[in-house]
Amino acid sequence: MTELLLINPNTTSSITELVLKTAKEFAGKDTILRAVSGAFGPRYIASRVGYAIAGHAAVDALARDRGRKDAVVLACFGDPGLAALKEIAKVPVVGMADASILQACAIGQRFSIVTGGERWKPMLEEFVASHGLSSRLASVRTVAPTGADIARKPKAALALLAKGCRACVREDRADVVILGGAGLAGLAAKLKDVVDVPLLDGVACAISMAESLARQKLAKAKVGPFSAPAPVESIGLSPALARALR
Amino acid sequence: MTELLLINPNTTSSITELVLKTAKEFAGKDTILRAVSGAFGPRYIASRVGYAIAGHAAVDALARDRGRKDAVVLACFGDPGLAALKEIAKVPVVGMADASILQACAIGQRFSIVTGGERWKPMLEEFVASHGLSSRLASVRTVAPTGADIARKPKAALALLAKGCRACVREDRADVVILGGAGLAGLAAKLKDVVDVPLLDGVACAISMAESLARQKLAKAKVGPFSAPAPVESIGLSPALARALR
Amino acid sequence: MTELLLINPNTTSSITELVLKTAKEFAGKDTILRAVSGAFGPRYIASRVGYAIAGHAAVDALARDRGRKDAVVLACFGDPGLAALKEIAKVPVVGMADASILQACAIGQRFSIVTGGERWKPMLEEFVASHGLSSRLASVRTVAPTGADIARKPKAALALLAKGCRACVREDRADVVILGGAGLAGLAAKLKDVVDVPLLDGVACAISMAESLARQKLAKAKVGPFSAPAPVESIGLSPALARALR
Amino acid sequence: MTELLLINPNTTSSITELVLKTAKEFAGKDTILRAVSGAFGPRYIASRVGYAIAGHAAVDALARDRGRKDAVVLACFGDPGLAALKEIAKVPVVGMADASILQACAIGQRFSIVTGGERWKPMLEEFVASHGLSSRLASVRTVAPTGADIARKPKAALALLAKGCRACVREDRADVVILGGAGLAGLAAKLKDVVDVPLLDGVACAISMAESLARQKLAKAKVGPFSAPAPVESIGLSPALARALR
Amino acid sequence: MTELLLINPNTTSSITELVLKTAKEFAGKDTILRAVSGAFGPRYIASRVGYAIAGHAAVDALARDRGRKDAVVLACFGDPGLAALKEIAKVPVVGMADASILQACAIGQRFSIVTGGERWKPMLEEFVASHGLSSRLASVRTVAPTGADIARKPKAALALLAKGCRACVREDRADVVILGGAGLAGLAAKLKDVVDVPLLDGVACAISMAESLARQKLAKAKVGPFSAPAPVESIGLSPALARALR
Amino acid sequence: MTELLLINPNTTSSITELVLKTAKEFAGKDTILRAVSGAFGPRYIASRVGYAIAGHAAVDALARDRGRKDAVVLACFGDPGLAALKEIAKVPVVGMADASILQACAIGQRFSIVTGGERWKPMLEEFVASHGLSSRLASVRTVAPTGADIARKPKAALALLAKGCRACVREDRADVVILGGAGLAGLAAKLKDVVDVPLLDGVACAISMAESLARQKLAKAKVGPFSAPAPVESIGLSPALARALR
Repeated sequence: MTELLLINPNTTSSITELVLKTAKEFAGKDTILRAVSGAFGPRYIASRVGYAIAGHAAVDALARDRGRKDAVVLACFGDPGLAALKEIAKVPVVGMADASILQACAIGQRFSIVTGGERWKPMLEEFVASHGLSSRLASVRTVAPTGADIARKPKAALALLAKGCRACVREDRADVVILGGAGLAGLAAKLKDVVDVPLLDGVACAISMAESLARQKLAKAKVGPFSAPAPVESIGLSPALARALR
Repeated sequence: MTELLLINPNTTSSITELVLKTAKEFAGKDTILRAVSGAFGPRYIASRVGYAIAGHAAVDALARDRGRKDAVVLACFGDPGLAALKEIAKVPVVGMADASILQACAIGQRFSIVTGGERWKPMLEEFVASHGLSSRLASVRTVAPTGADIARKPKAALALLAKGCRACVREDRADVVILGGAGLAGLAAKLKDVVDVPLLDGVACAISMAESLARQKLAKAKVGPFSAPAPVESIGLSPALARALR
Repeated sequence: MTELLLINPNTTSSITELVLKTAKEFAGKDTILRAVSGAFGPRYIASRVGYAIAGHAAVDALARDRGRKDAVVLACFGDPGLAALKEIAKVPVVGMADASILQACAIGQRFSIVTGGERWKPMLEEFVASHGLSSRLASVRTVAPTGADIARKPKAALALLAKGCRACVREDRADVVILGGAGLAGLAAKLKDVVDVPLLDGVACAISMAESLARQKLAKAKVGPFSAPAPVESIGLSPALARALR
Repeated sequence: MTELLLINPNTTSSITELVLKTAKEFAGKDTILRAVSGAFGPRYIASRVGYAIAGHAAVDALARDRGRKDAVVLACFGDPGLAALKEIAKVPVVGMADASILQACAIGQRFSIVTGGERWKPMLEEFVASHGLSSRLASVRTVAPTGADIARKPKAALALLAKGCRACVREDRADVVILGGAGLAGLAAKLKDVVDVPLLDGVACAISMAESLARQKLAKAKVGPFSAPAPVESIGLSPALARALR
Repeated sequence: MTELLLINPNTTSSITELVLKTAKEFAGKDTILRAVSGAFGPRYIASRVGYAIAGHAAVDALARDRGRKDAVVLACFGDPGLAALKEIAKVPVVGMADASILQACAIGQRFSIVTGGERWKPMLEEFVASHGLSSRLASVRTVAPTGADIARKPKAALALLAKGCRACVREDRADVVILGGAGLAGLAAKLKDVVDVPLLDGVACAISMAESLARQKLAKAKVGPFSAPAPVESIGLSPALARALR
Repeated sequence: MTELLLINPNTTSSITELVLKTAKEFAGKDTILRAVSGAFGPRYIASRVGYAIAGHAAVDALARDRGRKDAVVLACFGDPGLAALKEIAKVPVVGMADASILQACAIGQRFSIVTGGERWKPMLEEFVASHGLSSRLASVRTVAPTGADIARKPKAALALLAKGCRACVREDRADVVILGGAGLAGLAAKLKDVVDVPLLDGVACAISMAESLARQKLAKAKVGPFSAPAPVESIGLSPALARALR
């Protein structure tokens, strides 16, 4: 049995449910899934300020969770708070964007990302660069509706997304495309037939990477940047997070 | 008259005061300085989880501030929340680490950073890399006491810091050294005679860069990643920040 | 049911069996594994010339295999022939080194590789560079015995390998270590308690990445560098490979 | 009181005067400015051969100057002789292009440069690369008239420059633009309203960076590449420069 | 007297003869040339699988050759097996693509490659990257006919190739262009008048680099990655290659 | 017949003669060599200020030369003025350092440079970086005596240089070493037996690269950064150089 905790660091529970539903489709039979949302912050993350708040919300959500888990999935494509979660979690933490770009690299030489919300383009380019993988990135293409918009009306967005994916292949020479974004969970299956290269679903990548790491029963780092940090006093945080820092 | 707001995103007001005092020494005569601390979060930032919370605290502090300002200085060496602040502020925002590494690049070819708290070493290496400047970085050297420790007992740390600075020059071939960290504000002046290359004070760099940008009266971006983001609903934030997002 | 074909491109069947045995320990319950060895070439790969021959042996082995498979694992740490296999295989192909460095990147910021055979050090450094991940590589450390030597006498090598892994953490600042090499399959489990950061087994990484890709039922690229190449006449190849090229 | 020496390494005194006039507009009240031109070389720098000569002219100009100065500004966008000046000057030396790209990096993530003279495009791309900042460069766009042409007839060039700046934002995704070139000094103020992101004037950036460095009273490097070089005999140089080398 | 062995790792002797003929035109008077073809493999190399086989064929061809030689030229633009050849050869080995990109770098700042066969575009981009020279690459442009097609009907391809070369200069800003591909040997002379920058013939570059290295009588590496590897047993190889490995 | 002009941009004719003598040893039989020295500047180049002057001296020397030449060799290891010479010369121009690092890359994967004069270390590191080849550089090691010192007393320096070369191999893992510096011309032959990897003489590399480019009768660029620049008026230059600019 592998138990995974999904953390959606935004505050829209319908998106959390969508991700959880999609995750269940991709998860192995002996994987148990739970999901939580951020306790505070914007309804969806579509800007740098939302991203900054979501990093705090993500660590807060982990601190509040008392259930058993073998790995954690950070279910926002862009992974706000990922490094902080790795530091304080006792089990492996997988970011949805991180897992997706790594699996894309296992498949092809040049990957593209298609997602919703125009501000994500530079944010994801910087994300890929900060992971040292710019030389593998063919392009990031965004469609105007945000992930939250797409989650509400997925059908309306399919044609736009298909067009974006195809442009990645034809114009940007991607040999693998990632459909990213919590709000886009599950749409890759609907688009794969119209894209000429493998099309990855961010949720599927995150779940399988988390299952893989959980199954390997990797030890928590005892030293270095992802070992548990020294305790520190705090003010104004949720009791659970304050306790986690102490 | 140039008015600068200093934001210390941690929650220790004595460090905020130390930074403000040092900033006043370096500021021009017609510069007016104010400083605020984070409303929540750890007492000092010495880990990735603290860093994640501080990004939220920094934007919250800006949203709460109603005073006039011509530029904002983010006074934590490592600059949590810098990109988010640039997005929502109407005036230029300067990060203390960012301003320091840029001024170091104006002076020499290879810079080193010396600061307090061992976890800052990988965090600052990643910071420099994410700014595209790894090829200019000679080294990051940390001393064991955190910035907060050093702020409390600066004299005890001077010998350690001097040793670190000299190693940057002799072993890592730095031709300019930055003494970083809010808690180390003002110490560069005490160490400059024992270091054989220019020694920069992070606070001095931040203040002068902010004065310079303020004086140029640069327009706020109307498009692109640092223009004002689209409004978004939120829950659980301070009223000021919720209003700023809307 | 997921069926995986393991290709060991060297010509030592005991190593093929060792890898297969280790792979079975890590594979999911509904995964079926088969393994084949190279039909020609050196007994083990420990040089560039062996690596060049093994690339041919790998594609030859795939062409000869007529069994059903949902994904292919190239079970030589260094992945000779990986791009060629991706081109001609109808299913996803996972390289053992590639899968390992990608999973290491999911866990930490800086990874090291420990393996047997001194010539692998520059070869693996170039491998990591060619995948665009040099900025994430802390170090490659090799021990003098080759993978084949270690496969024969694993106990003798354990102390050497442990020393190498610990040096990666202490001296090279790795926050995750990969124990690479077909001949080292299974040894990570024996060493994990003496290494202070997560220790990855190359075989485990490859198997789980292959299972993940197989489960996602990704389409074969119809265009681009990993689509099926144009047919070409040949001479002097095995009938199976000649047929595969035609 | 801060005294700055501006060195225009070309030999057109009207451009020197234009830079000096613009510099005075941006300088602080307690800054005193002087400017000198090159004693030999082309009338303006618009090629690599002119650039090579200007490097010599710049160090010659510094050697000839006997006035007091707290910092030196090299007032040719492209900074010929910058490293050599840093080596022999006793005070900080700021290059106009260098200061501009560094301040641009403090403001945005991707900067563009607009200047006059088509040969400057590859020269400035190489300049940015040699400073390790290519990953931050959105584009260099040049207009056909040289800086000298523009200095003579600024109004004729405004529309062309505006078009170039806007293309940097719309097509190259710059989030900050630098108007570079001694001959373009002061034009940014006239164009800022038609550009949707912050527009930097190269002279303003250089002056404020020089004031900042001068105010910090940084020590001259005693060791390393920017310390004073060993004396060397010479022939055929101006008496002042020969003396400076000895 | 300098004796050079040309290895064409594909199996089409008419291409081997074409390369030899072109090589003789460029070689010095006291250079003696011989050429051999691969003993097995595809008729021409136009895919990754062909490339993998050709690496083996190249080392096999060297092992079979018993003649005297002062240097070896690997006469397939893309250099399959180059590192392996360097390892086992007692004399310098020059790759045609490698020599061409290095000579291009001696001439200009940004080079382009024009060749036949569409799959070579990503393969050559990766080749250039793996040599650390991506920052110097302006573009790779391919025409649809493969090198083998062009060798058969060179006149038909001239207009296409000219168009490609000119696009490299005008659109990609190359300041030097390489006409690569064994099948294109000798065509640069016919196209140089219609291209506005220096146009390099891959064969000419390889021959002159090999002559230069041979003339310098460089010692074979006694240590490191290009020294002779440890002996290893093998199966299924040609007797000559098996002997070379032992 | 190939005629080469060697330009030594420093002003010590005995070094010019030493380079010419060494060049003759490496040149082909049908190569005719001439050499000129700089008309002004320091006696030797061992600092950035000397380097800046030498760039001017190099273009001045070319402008003064009225003899026939098929290629030009810039015979100072570090290549001051190389890009400017390429711009104004009608024939190919080869820099001694540039040719050496490119030939080193043809031989091995990681090269080191050993030369005289401690300030050359950072200057050559920057040179290699500006050519995009930092990923291939194992190290630059300098000995304390300058090139001029070594030219005067070569025997005294041999042991120091041998030690440096060996350290490049053993400690820095170079697989090819360049002995650079005009003053070190010819010493590689004396040291090759004590270095375990190929040892390149900078003069030999430059001569053979120049012969190769000359023999290919490459056209002068008609467009782009190395085509002839637009004419420009000047003051204070030698009549020959002033004429060349006009």
